[in-house]
Amino acid sequence: MIKQPVNGRRSPQNEDKTSNFKDGYVIGADIGGTNLRVALADTNGAICARWSTSTAGIRSAPKVIDLIAEGIDALLQQTSLPRSALSAIAAGAPGIVDVDQGIVIATSYLMGWRDVPLRALLEAALDIPASIDNDVNVAAIGEHYAGIAQDVSDFVFIAIGTGVGAGIMLNGQLHHGNAWTAGEIGYMLVPGTSEASVERGQPGALESIVGGEGIRTQWQNRWSENATALPRELSATQILDQALSDPLASDVLQLSARTLSYAIYNLSLVLNCPLFVLGGGVGIHPALGEATQQFLHQRNARVQPRVEQSTLGPEAQLIGAISLAIQTAKTRDPIAQR
Amino acid sequence: MIKQPVNGRRSPQNEDKTSNFKDGYVIGADIGGTNLRVALADTNGAICARWSTSTAGIRSAPKVIDLIAEGIDALLQQTSLPRSALSAIAAGAPGIVDVDQGIVIATSYLMGWRDVPLRALLEAALDIPASIDNDVNVAAIGEHYAGIAQDVSDFVFIAIGTGVGAGIMLNGQLHHGNAWTAGEIGYMLVPGTSEASVERGQPGALESIVGGEGIRTQWQNRWSENATALPRELSATQILDQALSDPLASDVLQLSARTLSYAIYNLSLVLNCPLFVLGGGVGIHPALGEATQQFLHQRNARVQPRVEQSTLGPEAQLIGAISLAIQTAKTRDPIAQR
Repeated sequence: MIKQPVNGRRSPQNEDKTSNFKDGYVIGADIGGTNLRVALADTNGAICARWSTSTAGIRSAPKVIDLIAEGIDALLQQTSLPRSALSAIAAGAPGIVDVDQGIVIATSYLMGWRDVPLRALLEAALDIPASIDNDVNVAAIGEHYAGIAQDVSDFVFIAIGTGVGAGIMLNGQLHHGNAWTAGEIGYMLVPGTSEASVERGQPGALESIVGGEGIRTQWQNRWSENATALPRELSATQILDQALSDPLASDVLQLSARTLSYAIYNLSLVLNCPLFVLGGGVGIHPALGEATQQFLHQRNARVQPRVEQSTLGPEAQLIGAISLAIQTAKTRDPIAQR
Repeated sequence: MIKQPVNGRRSPQNEDKTSNFKDGYVIGADIGGTNLRVALADTNGAICARWSTSTAGIRSAPKVIDLIAEGIDALLQQTSLPRSALSAIAAGAPGIVDVDQGIVIATSYLMGWRDVPLRALLEAALDIPASIDNDVNVAAIGEHYAGIAQDVSDFVFIAIGTGVGAGIMLNGQLHHGNAWTAGEIGYMLVPGTSEASVERGQPGALESIVGGEGIRTQWQNRWSENATALPRELSATQILDQALSDPLASDVLQLSARTLSYAIYNLSLVLNCPLFVLGGGVGIHPALGEATQQFLHQRNARVQPRVEQSTLGPEAQLIGAISLAIQTAKTRDPIAQR
């Protein structure tokens, strides 16, 4: 174990922050609108234990903190580790996050958070340094740490679940934007999207066609017994599953993939990133990825971006949170030394 | 005058590159498809003398270098300065520029350059350190150095002339992209633009509506003696000049401004930059700027970007080149010391 400095502040002679890094364990947490997942990992990123619970109907931030603490207790018990073995926690939250201040500025109406000091709440409850970021950004960190974007310093992670969002990594750093909203591409305007102004909390122009809920809506708007033998009530992935055999499902896939290809084309024009990673429950569907790539190849772009599926899938957020927690352990003083 | 190190390479003890900086003069050059402008400035950026000439019909890079050298001779004569007073040159070129290698990868068909080692040609001809970048990027540097974007570390400069391009500054640094094509927004797809694939060298989807040539085309496509009392042959700025009084000119303005507002909205979603600067001969037209802002305000964006006209106008590229040349003088060894 590396010797800790006697007092809390490192002396100027000891500026290499990693030299202060104690081997130990970290916690990664993925706070979702319906599920909370917590994992304990060593500082090589190997996951030692996992815990999850439902967050359906839970809007209170202190209640979410209680659940995380409960999960950590369970993980410590599972691994027979003492609490003192934990050196940091990081959490992804489904909203706009001020990373510097550690505040969740806003989440979707599901949780309804406004200006929640999540980092301070975590540190107060757990007594270890905490970091937080937007869940899509955290997933991008995950793909960079252990997924398809390892060793790629410039890429865009596009999460397609119910809605659509992006995590933008430039020069190996997340681009957060001036008001922490960079990557809010669910509202992007491309040919075929509605031009109408969108009320906050309502699906954006792009995600109304490309997101999971949007795909369901497009399907239902077009559905009739003449158009398809499939039922009207299907999930987005069920619709995509049928795209090879059902003409209506094929139409909806083509619409979503063409619209997504326009968004990726625009992002590529603006950022000139070599890699786009499709993630999220809908984004990792092979049919959507393949059709999107076909539309992109049809364009005569000077620079043809590479589009790949996430290799971490639903693990991206959790692994990203672990990576962020390891970084936090390496660069921040333990709470007791502050 | 600060003492120069005796040998060409600075010793490790002398790593502060600015300490090697000799007070002197720099050259900024703006290489355009129709005009070449060259200016001599002191290292505070004050322009001491200017020179310009037509480049119409000139496709040869060595010929452009000859013209720049001719311009510098004239500027030195004008100012009675010796050649040894010059410490660096920087040039903006109308194309895709590999800034690291100093190569113009491609320009528009007007000049038809492919892989021209412009930096090496300038250094060989002039015997002073040279830097080059894309002309829109150089204009963004200008606005950052002495224009509306002073003290703004994150902004997008949108140049609207014949076509449309953007220079993206993030954290005070230009974002060039993996293949030096970042900011090629003239090809952006937004509602109302053509979805067809565009041949290289042809106007992009966005610039077909927002660019000067696009505005002229939109005007001519709609023109009839019943629709307007104005002539069919008008320039883009003449059309915009008439937008308050002529219904057809107003229609074309509204179309261009709405389309431009969609592009800025998309850029704001992706980058979350607080400031957008409109430049270029068409971009600085007040009617276009005002109408674009009105369309943007109508959207219910979480983050409302500020849209401002360039304060440097047609000077942006030249001042940016001067700023880049000053930076070059401060950070690069004189040629004789290499």
